[in-house]
Amino acid sequence: MNVAMRPIEGVYLCDQLDLPEIFGDAVAGIPDLRLLKPSDVTDPENIRFALAWRPAPDAFDAYPNLELVQVIAAGVDPVLRTPSLPKDAVVTRVHDPEQAAIMAGFTAWQVVWHHRNMKAYLDAARRSEWTRKLIKTLRPPSQVTIGILGYGYMGRAIANAVRAMGFPVVVATRSAGAAQDGITRIAGADAVQKVAAHSDILINVLPLTDETRGVLNKNLFWAMPQGAALIQLGRGEHLIEDDLLDALNANHLSGASLDVFQQEPLPPTHPFWTHPDIVITPHEASVTSPVAVADALAQSVREMAQGKHPTTAIDRESGY
Amino acid sequence: MNVAMRPIEGVYLCDQLDLPEIFGDAVAGIPDLRLLKPSDVTDPENIRFALAWRPAPDAFDAYPNLELVQVIAAGVDPVLRTPSLPKDAVVTRVHDPEQAAIMAGFTAWQVVWHHRNMKAYLDAARRSEWTRKLIKTLRPPSQVTIGILGYGYMGRAIANAVRAMGFPVVVATRSAGAAQDGITRIAGADAVQKVAAHSDILINVLPLTDETRGVLNKNLFWAMPQGAALIQLGRGEHLIEDDLLDALNANHLSGASLDVFQQEPLPPTHPFWTHPDIVITPHEASVTSPVAVADALAQSVREMAQGKHPTTAIDRESGY
Repeated sequence: MNVAMRPIEGVYLCDQLDLPEIFGDAVAGIPDLRLLKPSDVTDPENIRFALAWRPAPDAFDAYPNLELVQVIAAGVDPVLRTPSLPKDAVVTRVHDPEQAAIMAGFTAWQVVWHHRNMKAYLDAARRSEWTRKLIKTLRPPSQVTIGILGYGYMGRAIANAVRAMGFPVVVATRSAGAAQDGITRIAGADAVQKVAAHSDILINVLPLTDETRGVLNKNLFWAMPQGAALIQLGRGEHLIEDDLLDALNANHLSGASLDVFQQEPLPPTHPFWTHPDIVITPHEASVTSPVAVADALAQSVREMAQGKHPTTAIDRESGY
Repeated sequence: MNVAMRPIEGVYLCDQLDLPEIFGDAVAGIPDLRLLKPSDVTDPENIRFALAWRPAPDAFDAYPNLELVQVIAAGVDPVLRTPSLPKDAVVTRVHDPEQAAIMAGFTAWQVVWHHRNMKAYLDAARRSEWTRKLIKTLRPPSQVTIGILGYGYMGRAIANAVRAMGFPVVVATRSAGAAQDGITRIAGADAVQKVAAHSDILINVLPLTDETRGVLNKNLFWAMPQGAALIQLGRGEHLIEDDLLDALNANHLSGASLDVFQQEPLPPTHPFWTHPDIVITPHEASVTSPVAVADALAQSVREMAQGKHPTTAIDRESGY
């Protein structure tokens, strides 16, 4: 038997979504790769990779030779905090330009929502009212600073979209990096706080790590300019929800767009739903297509088989 | 008396807005220029320019030596159709990068509104409902073509913003011009119809001329793909309103965003107000700041005084 011709075997691992249903068709087209449901695995020692999302705590225990975990999204935190994740497994994520474009468009929409107070237009239209409000009142975009917390794959796509609408951008980033027109980078331990202090509209796309948990809190909100708005697209665990309600109810912040929550689905009785200054979306700011996930998986497995370090591997130390 | 030191005199001409109230402060800072209300003009023969918007039909008759008419906006059609406009007066408009950025942001918002069906999110939130809908249903932006009718100062700013969100763009333009990444130019007599036929979301920013009056009509709507949307930011006279209602009610078009109307303010009983697929804004997609208008005026008058053809002069033959 020619060992080189044997397909590399992997397993779907998810406690919440039906991954075979969502990704089966797209994955079927990848040559030299076989992806199985856990119940179809006959020899767990053959399993070398997983396609994963929110696995059960002990999900990885059955597979002693697992080398690679491909996450189905851009954020890897649910996999990293799975207790059974082998300590030397390489974790890869999806870098999907289409998903970044979707995220950029969604964020641009939320930015304009707050900058232009689009809610007032929709409310007036519901009353069949023609109410002009702009002349002498609109702050020109060149004077409205957009802050971005997290300047990775998503943050960069968002920055480009926001720049094309004329807003200056300030980003919190670990790395110095080359200057770009209209984009100010702030690095260092207090970068997040400094960016917040400059931001008329603040966008969170940080990865979730021990360092960033609870980063959207009262200290940050009260450092922001009076009347500023928050666009929260990271993880629910970034936000201290009561602190946001306090800042809105004190009229320090003017509004918030929230896509992620401490508890999802957001419970029907949660006060966010009925708050007049909050826009809620159900964790759908962006989405990766099954084909993009299959492509990412194919690339990661190919790189692993060739003994390379996968391109989209995260640093398990820093958590992103 | 040193004639060169005498300020150049001009007059405010508008039947609808209080131009001195809106622009007085900004214009006061321009050296060598004096701008008067018609009632303050003592020697009409001294008036060499006007700052104008929707003047009375005979507004220009009183000023025999008027050489330049600076319009306060990007669209010059209300001035061009004023019967008393001297036949050889130069008409200039405002090219305000800040206004173009405002327009780009507003248009991006409307594009995402239709692409992502943001209305469904707002409606679900109003019912405290967490309803996810994206996986396997969202058309990726790379497969959603944005058409732009009119590729002037505004059209270009819009194209850039839409490109930054990953959408391919097709534009109707008179001039061939250099190719740009992701932007397809279509020229020729049937350019508008051809662009419409490709557009999942069609944006109108054409100037109003005899040729473009009524261009948004049933022929155009039924040439568009089933389920397409219209974003109308040009002039009310571009749109045959009943044709739009028919195309929406037949479910051929999925929605429309309208900022300009045949009659403004839009009458409270107009069927647009209550149509579930129409978003109405009160002719405020963009706005020019008084300072930008004053800068444009100062530049045009300076160029006129130096015997130059003003940079932002329109071609009176074509009407834009």
